[in-house]
Amino acid sequence: MMVVQKYGGSSVADIERIKNVAARIEKRVKNGDKLIVVVSAMGKTTNELIALAGKISSQPSPRELDMLLATGEQVSAALLSIALMELGVRSISYNAFQLNINTFGEFSNARIADINLNKIYSELEARDVLVVTGFQGINPEGDLTTLGRGGSDTSAVAIAAKACVPCEIYSDVAGIYTCDPKVHEKARKLEYITYDDMLELAALGAKVLHSRSVEIAKKYNVELICLSSFSEEGGTRVVAKLPEWLEQPVVTGATIDTNQLKVTVNYLPGDTDILSRIFNAVAKASFNVDMISVVNENGHSHLTFTVLSANPAAIRRTIESVLKDIDGWELTLDDNVAKVSTVGVGMRSSAGVAARFFSSLQKAGVRIIATTTSEIKISVLVPRTDASKALRVLLDEFDL
Amino acid sequence: MMVVQKYGGSSVADIERIKNVAARIEKRVKNGDKLIVVVSAMGKTTNELIALAGKISSQPSPRELDMLLATGEQVSAALLSIALMELGVRSISYNAFQLNINTFGEFSNARIADINLNKIYSELEARDVLVVTGFQGINPEGDLTTLGRGGSDTSAVAIAAKACVPCEIYSDVAGIYTCDPKVHEKARKLEYITYDDMLELAALGAKVLHSRSVEIAKKYNVELICLSSFSEEGGTRVVAKLPEWLEQPVVTGATIDTNQLKVTVNYLPGDTDILSRIFNAVAKASFNVDMISVVNENGHSHLTFTVLSANPAAIRRTIESVLKDIDGWELTLDDNVAKVSTVGVGMRSSAGVAARFFSSLQKAGVRIIATTTSEIKISVLVPRTDASKALRVLLDEFDL
Repeated sequence: MMVVQKYGGSSVADIERIKNVAARIEKRVKNGDKLIVVVSAMGKTTNELIALAGKISSQPSPRELDMLLATGEQVSAALLSIALMELGVRSISYNAFQLNINTFGEFSNARIADINLNKIYSELEARDVLVVTGFQGINPEGDLTTLGRGGSDTSAVAIAAKACVPCEIYSDVAGIYTCDPKVHEKARKLEYITYDDMLELAALGAKVLHSRSVEIAKKYNVELICLSSFSEEGGTRVVAKLPEWLEQPVVTGATIDTNQLKVTVNYLPGDTDILSRIFNAVAKASFNVDMISVVNENGHSHLTFTVLSANPAAIRRTIESVLKDIDGWELTLDDNVAKVSTVGVGMRSSAGVAARFFSSLQKAGVRIIATTTSEIKISVLVPRTDASKALRVLLDEFDL
Repeated sequence: MMVVQKYGGSSVADIERIKNVAARIEKRVKNGDKLIVVVSAMGKTTNELIALAGKISSQPSPRELDMLLATGEQVSAALLSIALMELGVRSISYNAFQLNINTFGEFSNARIADINLNKIYSELEARDVLVVTGFQGINPEGDLTTLGRGGSDTSAVAIAAKACVPCEIYSDVAGIYTCDPKVHEKARKLEYITYDDMLELAALGAKVLHSRSVEIAKKYNVELICLSSFSEEGGTRVVAKLPEWLEQPVVTGATIDTNQLKVTVNYLPGDTDILSRIFNAVAKASFNVDMISVVNENGHSHLTFTVLSANPAAIRRTIESVLKDIDGWELTLDDNVAKVSTVGVGMRSSAGVAARFFSSLQKAGVRIIATTTSEIKISVLVPRTDASKALRVLLDEFDL
């Protein structure tokens, strides 16, 4: 059977782990499988390369940064292929560009336009394993591009979608948990999760799967399973619909995201287009806005929103430039906050989830700064010191 | 003016040095030059990558090794381009494959077949600097290939030859010296050296220029100059013929090469094709044979030869496999030797150079194990403990 496997950075973090992955692949090959193996860069390589560029320029050219980062996966692909050949497995490594993984869109966040499978198919006639650099592709100009952080998942799922084969995602945790198992001992592994719940969890910062990869898996109904490369434990299947026999949980998971910077601008003139001008400027400066709340009072607007992983000085400059001709406003920034969320397809049909959510937090004395809700998600912004307590309360309330 | 520059590993070994190179390039750009800058991998990166592969396999696939090593120059090219842009220089980096630096021949030692300059020319219309990964190319199958150690020189000279522009080679020494200036304080820098003398010196292990780059420079009469990236000192021009006004030295340079492994096989049957069988097997195993001496005596042959940078166990296996059906021979390996050489186009016309060479060594009591000579070179193999003394004696004798 042909299968796509993806091994994340922690699975290939050093020589011993690469050998471990090679040995696992060898077993599968002995069982008769043909594997397309997508690899991430070793361990923290991508971060190290970004830091190196950061020592030269505070805003390196995205094209040159992609050129730089694309080396990370090339190293791990070549090393894994060498390790496989050492075990007698017929393997060959390829860069994404050599396999015509064509992308469009901006550097550092390119999207896969198409993949030509001819070379993959012809190589796998004579070989057992084709190792491919994840996270990258080539644009119509012939420049190397990368798909954004976690993009190796997208590479793997896209190949699986195009080839109509299953996709196995290997990381250092054996699946999707109700909350981060490295932080909370109460975390419980899910045997199944829907594409929709997975999308919400990924968007909330669950690191197991890249959002875009889940979108593609959903669109093409890719058989997707998340596993650990360090154990034989059964993983989590990501599916369109939970199996009938499975008791449908109301809430599937809970997360904490501490990458939020809270931006508050009080006393804005209420009768202008100032809010849209602020959000336009923030978007143009490529800040990623998350939660938004606006209060109008006595002819003034009070705006609060959060941005992800932002540089406070840069956001301050952006907002001040919009408001330079206006008087009386007050800007405050606060990164001492966290976003706590629960996700679950079951929320759609189960009334009262929101009520239980908010009343449990209230009982526990958690201060809520802002909220956002969707059909299958509730998020609150809380003081960072309250975040763990809030999560614990929610895990208990929803029996996660 | 359009110029090709090549910066070696020590010139781009860390972020500070990359910034230094960028600042030097900026000056040239301000003078109105357009530069094609060929870079090596940072510092010892290539060795580190080879060591990484060596932890997985004692004989990694050459194709996968080239895939691995090609990342080194991609990192330095991207970082240098980022550094140039930070200074406001209009720069872009390219991989050799993106510029159609096409190669043929075996992996790890590929040769440049041709370079299509169209992209280089069109990029340099809108930009000042094009940074290119040295040491690598792409073969007709679309695989990444490397040109052998020091191959970035070859990349640079090949581009210069094709574009008919001068080539500047930057390293951490400001030119070609009569002997290694890092080891011998008597070393003297040459203002000029002929392609022929440079070829001999490069073949003997002088690390400033890769042999093949000198061959190409000679063939296409490339204006070649070796300079330091750490000083403004004038360098060494590599030319077809020394200028008339220059006093022609008999001997241009002297080198020590300690990468030699001496292989001696005594008591071989003298009346067979055993010698050619040994050399065939050694060549097939890709050992690089250098000096050879054979003595026939009482119906036996005694063979001594040296191989470069060889694994003693591997060469022993190779020879034993050839001799497995033969009795009486004795194999000894000795890496405690060094090859000392002098080079000079002047030797051709100057009688008595060999006599002075050997008698000066004899007077100094240096034991000579083997010798090889060419029209413009004399080399002797000596015990490693005698090597420094031998070099000193020769430097004095020939006033280097």
